[in-house]
Amino acid sequence: MTDLPGIVVTGASGRMGQMLIRTVLQSDKAKLVGVVERAGHDWIGQDVGVAMGGAPLDLHVTDDALEAFSRAQAVIDFTAPAATVEFAGIAAQARAVHVIGTTGLSDEDLAKIKAAARHAVVVRAGNMSLGVNLLVQLTKKVAAALDEDFDIEVIEAHHRHKVDAPSGTALMLGEAAAEGRGVMLEAVSDRARDGMTGARERGHIGFHAIRGGDIVGEHDVMFAADGERIILRHVASDRAVFARGALKAALWGQDRKPGEYDMVDVLGL
Amino acid sequence: MTDLPGIVVTGASGRMGQMLIRTVLQSDKAKLVGVVERAGHDWIGQDVGVAMGGAPLDLHVTDDALEAFSRAQAVIDFTAPAATVEFAGIAAQARAVHVIGTTGLSDEDLAKIKAAARHAVVVRAGNMSLGVNLLVQLTKKVAAALDEDFDIEVIEAHHRHKVDAPSGTALMLGEAAAEGRGVMLEAVSDRARDGMTGARERGHIGFHAIRGGDIVGEHDVMFAADGERIILRHVASDRAVFARGALKAALWGQDRKPGEYDMVDVLGL
Amino acid sequence: MTDLPGIVVTGASGRMGQMLIRTVLQSDKAKLVGVVERAGHDWIGQDVGVAMGGAPLDLHVTDDALEAFSRAQAVIDFTAPAATVEFAGIAAQARAVHVIGTTGLSDEDLAKIKAAARHAVVVRAGNMSLGVNLLVQLTKKVAAALDEDFDIEVIEAHHRHKVDAPSGTALMLGEAAAEGRGVMLEAVSDRARDGMTGARERGHIGFHAIRGGDIVGEHDVMFAADGERIILRHVASDRAVFARGALKAALWGQDRKPGEYDMVDVLGL
Amino acid sequence: MTDLPGIVVTGASGRMGQMLIRTVLQSDKAKLVGVVERAGHDWIGQDVGVAMGGAPLDLHVTDDALEAFSRAQAVIDFTAPAATVEFAGIAAQARAVHVIGTTGLSDEDLAKIKAAARHAVVVRAGNMSLGVNLLVQLTKKVAAALDEDFDIEVIEAHHRHKVDAPSGTALMLGEAAAEGRGVMLEAVSDRARDGMTGARERGHIGFHAIRGGDIVGEHDVMFAADGERIILRHVASDRAVFARGALKAALWGQDRKPGEYDMVDVLGL
Repeated sequence: MTDLPGIVVTGASGRMGQMLIRTVLQSDKAKLVGVVERAGHDWIGQDVGVAMGGAPLDLHVTDDALEAFSRAQAVIDFTAPAATVEFAGIAAQARAVHVIGTTGLSDEDLAKIKAAARHAVVVRAGNMSLGVNLLVQLTKKVAAALDEDFDIEVIEAHHRHKVDAPSGTALMLGEAAAEGRGVMLEAVSDRARDGMTGARERGHIGFHAIRGGDIVGEHDVMFAADGERIILRHVASDRAVFARGALKAALWGQDRKPGEYDMVDVLGL
Repeated sequence: MTDLPGIVVTGASGRMGQMLIRTVLQSDKAKLVGVVERAGHDWIGQDVGVAMGGAPLDLHVTDDALEAFSRAQAVIDFTAPAATVEFAGIAAQARAVHVIGTTGLSDEDLAKIKAAARHAVVVRAGNMSLGVNLLVQLTKKVAAALDEDFDIEVIEAHHRHKVDAPSGTALMLGEAAAEGRGVMLEAVSDRARDGMTGARERGHIGFHAIRGGDIVGEHDVMFAADGERIILRHVASDRAVFARGALKAALWGQDRKPGEYDMVDVLGL
Repeated sequence: MTDLPGIVVTGASGRMGQMLIRTVLQSDKAKLVGVVERAGHDWIGQDVGVAMGGAPLDLHVTDDALEAFSRAQAVIDFTAPAATVEFAGIAAQARAVHVIGTTGLSDEDLAKIKAAARHAVVVRAGNMSLGVNLLVQLTKKVAAALDEDFDIEVIEAHHRHKVDAPSGTALMLGEAAAEGRGVMLEAVSDRARDGMTGARERGHIGFHAIRGGDIVGEHDVMFAADGERIILRHVASDRAVFARGALKAALWGQDRKPGEYDMVDVLGL
Repeated sequence: MTDLPGIVVTGASGRMGQMLIRTVLQSDKAKLVGVVERAGHDWIGQDVGVAMGGAPLDLHVTDDALEAFSRAQAVIDFTAPAATVEFAGIAAQARAVHVIGTTGLSDEDLAKIKAAARHAVVVRAGNMSLGVNLLVQLTKKVAAALDEDFDIEVIEAHHRHKVDAPSGTALMLGEAAAEGRGVMLEAVSDRARDGMTGARERGHIGFHAIRGGDIVGEHDVMFAADGERIILRHVASDRAVFARGALKAALWGQDRKPGEYDMVDVLGL
C-alpha cells in the first residue's frame, strides 16, 4: 500500500471535493495523503472523516498547501480560478502532478498555469469524464467525414437547477463539430430556434437545452441527412465519473514530462 | 366489393392528395369513387392514374364536387381553408362524411364547419395519425396524475424544410399537458431557453425544435422528477399514417349521427 | 412536528432499509419513530445514526416489532416473505398502515396478508416507483386502444449485477399489455429472439434485457405499426424513488379504511 | 450531360434494383446507360420506365451484360452470388467499376471476385449506407479506447418481416467492437439473454433484436460503465440510403487503380 501514489484533494468541504475524497479512498491504485481547505474554514484541523459525517480517517484538514503537496504525487483541484492559479505554483514547486477541473479560468489565469507547467505536469479539462472527452473526439472526426448534407444538432439535458443554457459541454461539442468542418462555431450556431424561423440553413449547428428533475448530464450530437442519421450520445448518471476521470489523470501524469495536458492525452486517443 | 364505402379525395394533385389516393386504392375496406381538383387545374378531365404517372385507373379528375360527393359515402379533404369551408357545405348536402385534415382554419371557418355538421358527420383533427392523438390523450392523463415535482418538456424533431417551431403537434401536446394540470399554456410556456436563464421555474413547460434531414416527425413529452422520468414518445416514419388515419375516420363516420368529431372519438379513447 | 405521522422502517441494516431511513429523515411530512432488525443482529441496541456510519440520531434499533409498531402510524417493510407475513399480523394488531415492497411472496403468504388487511390498511406493490406504476396503467390503456397492427416490444436495461432477465417490472408491463389486449402473456410472449426466427408473429410481445454498467432501471414499451410508433418509457436514475413511493403510500394510507391497496390506488389513477 | 459517368444497374426488376434505377435517374452526377435482367425475364426488351409503371425512358432492359457494361463506367449490382460472380468477370473485361451490394457470398465466390479485381475496380460492402460504415469505424475506435469497465451491448430494430436475428449489420458492429478489444466475437458473444442468467460477464458483448412495424433499420452500440454511458446510434429511415451509398461508390471508383475496396475507402476514414 505504501507504494501507491499519494493524492491531495483541495476544496475538501465542497460537493465535488467530498466526492473526490471518497473516490480516492475507494481506489486501490492511490491513497489519500492530504486534504486542503482555505484558511479560516470550519474544517481546518478537523479529522476529514468526521467532518464529512462519518468515522474518523486519521487525516486532518489543513490550510498549508505546500506542506500537503510536498508529501503527495498529485493534487486534484476543482476549486475556483484564484485558488487554482495559486495551487499551480505550489504544485510545481512540490513537483506534484496538478489535475485541474476548475472552470471559468481567464486568459491571464491560463497563462500562469502554462508557466507552472514548465516545471510540472498539469492536466486540465472542462469535463473530466472519459466518455465526454471521447465524444468530443468522435464528434470532430464524424463532422470531418460527413459533408453538409448532414445537419448537426446538439441536444443536452440537465437538472432543473442549472442556470446556463446550453451547457459548457454542449458548446465544447459544437466547437468540435465546427472544427471538424473547418468553420467557426459563431458563424453557424443556431440557438433558441422558435417561431417562424424559415427552413433550416445548410451548415448550421443547432443547440437545445432540456431541463428537468435531477438529470446529471446527457449530450446527443445528431448528424441527420435524408434517409439516415448518426447520433453520438453520452449519458452521465453519477457525478463520480468526473472524480474518477480526475483520479485517472492523476495516475496517468506520474510518468510524464512537465507540460500541460488534457483528457484526450490521458485517454490516448 | 360494391358494398365498400365509396371515398372521394379532394386536392388530388398535391403531395397529400396523391398519398390519400394511393391509401384508398390499397385499402380493402373502401373504394375510390371520385377525385376532385379545382376548376382550371391541368388534371381536370385526365385519368387520375395517368396524371399520377402510372397506369390508367378508369377514373377521371373532376371539378364538380357536388356530383362526386353525391356518389360517395365520405370525402377526405386536406386542402386549404376556403376550399374546405365550401366542401363542408357540399358534403352536408350530399350527406357524405367529411374528414378534414386542413389546418389554419379561422374561427369564422370553424363556425361554418360547425353549421355544416348539423346535417352531416364531420371528423376534423390537426394531426390524423392515430398515434399522435393517443399521445395527446396520454399526455393529459399523465400531467393530471403527476404534480409539479415532475418538470414537463416537449421535444420535437422534423425535417430541415419545416418553417415553424415548435410544431403544431408539439403545441397540441403542450396544451394537453397544461390542461391536465389545470393551467393555461401561455402562462407556463418556456420557449427558446438560451443564455443565463437561471434555474428552471417550477410548473413550466419547455419546448425544443430539432431540425435535420428528412425526419417525418418525432415528439417526446418528458416528465422529469428527482430520480425518475416518464417519456411519452411518438415517431412518425411515413406520411401515409396521416392518410390511413383519415381513411379510418371516414369509415368510422359511416354509422354516426350528424355532428363534429375528432380523432379521439374515432380512437374511442 | 409532533403531529407528523410516525414511521417505522424494518430491515434497517439492508441497502433498501438504509435508503428508507434516510428518506423518512429527509421528509418534512413524516418522522422516523422506530427502526427494526431481526433478533440477534449486530445493530440491535445501537443508535441507528451511528450504525449507518454517521452522527447519532437518538433512536435505537430494536427487535421488538410490536412495541415499535404501536408507537407508529405506518410501517415500511422491504424485507423477506417470512418476516413480512409476521409483520403483517403485528401491524394489524397495532393498527399501523403496512407498506409492503417485499417480493417473492407465495400464494400462502398473500392469503395471510389478505387476512391481516381485514383489520388494517396494507399497501403492496412489486415496484413502488410512481412512474413505473403509471407506466403499467398507460401500457394497459394503449394496448387496449390499439389493435395488433401495432407490434409490442418491451425493452429494459439494468446494471451488470442483475441476475434475472427480463426484469420483474418488464414482465409486469408485458402482462399489462396482454391484459389490455385480452390475451394471456404466456401465449404470446416472445423471449430470446435469436437465429433464423422467421417473420415476427402478429400479436406477440417481445422482451429484451440490456445489461451494463450501473443502470438503475429503464423500461420501454414500444408499439410499432407501419409508419408510426408509440414508445412509453420510464427511467429510474436513483433507487430513492422506490423509497419515496413507499413513504407516499404510508402517508396516503393514513385516512383509509382497512383493506389491501396497491400503488395504483395511491396514485389515484 | 454527356460527360457524366454512365451507370448500369443489374437485377432491375427487384425492389433494390428499382430503387437503384430511381437513384441514378435523380442524380446530376451520373446517367443511367443500361439496365440488365436475367435472360428469360418478363422485362427483357421492355422500356424500363414503362416496366416500372411509369413513363417511357427510352432505355430498354437487356440480358446482354457485356454489351451494356461496355457502354458504362460503372455497374451497380445487388443481385445474388452466382450472378455477381459472373458480372465480376464481365465488368473486369469491360473495365467498368463493379459496385457489389450482394450478400451471402461464399469464400469461393470471394476468391473469384478478388481475381476480377486484379483488372478492375471492385467496391464491395455488406451495408452500403455511409452512416453504418462510419458507425463500424467508430465502434472499433471506441472499443479500443475504453477498457472492459465498459460493457458493450448492440441493440438493433427492424421491421416485422425480417427473418434473422440479430441483423448482419449488428454482427458487423459486434465484430468491430471485438476487433477493437483484440478478442474474437465468438468467444464473448452474449445472445438471447433470458431467465436466471447470473450477473453479466465482464468483456461480453450482448445482442438484442427488436422487431416491429416497418422499421427500416436502427442500430445502437452502447458502452456502459459505472456512472456513464456512450451510445453510438444509426437510424436508417429510407432504403434509398443504400442506393445512394452505392452510387457514391461508383463515382468514387472512377479514378482508382484496379483492386478491391470497401465503403471505408470510399468514405476516406
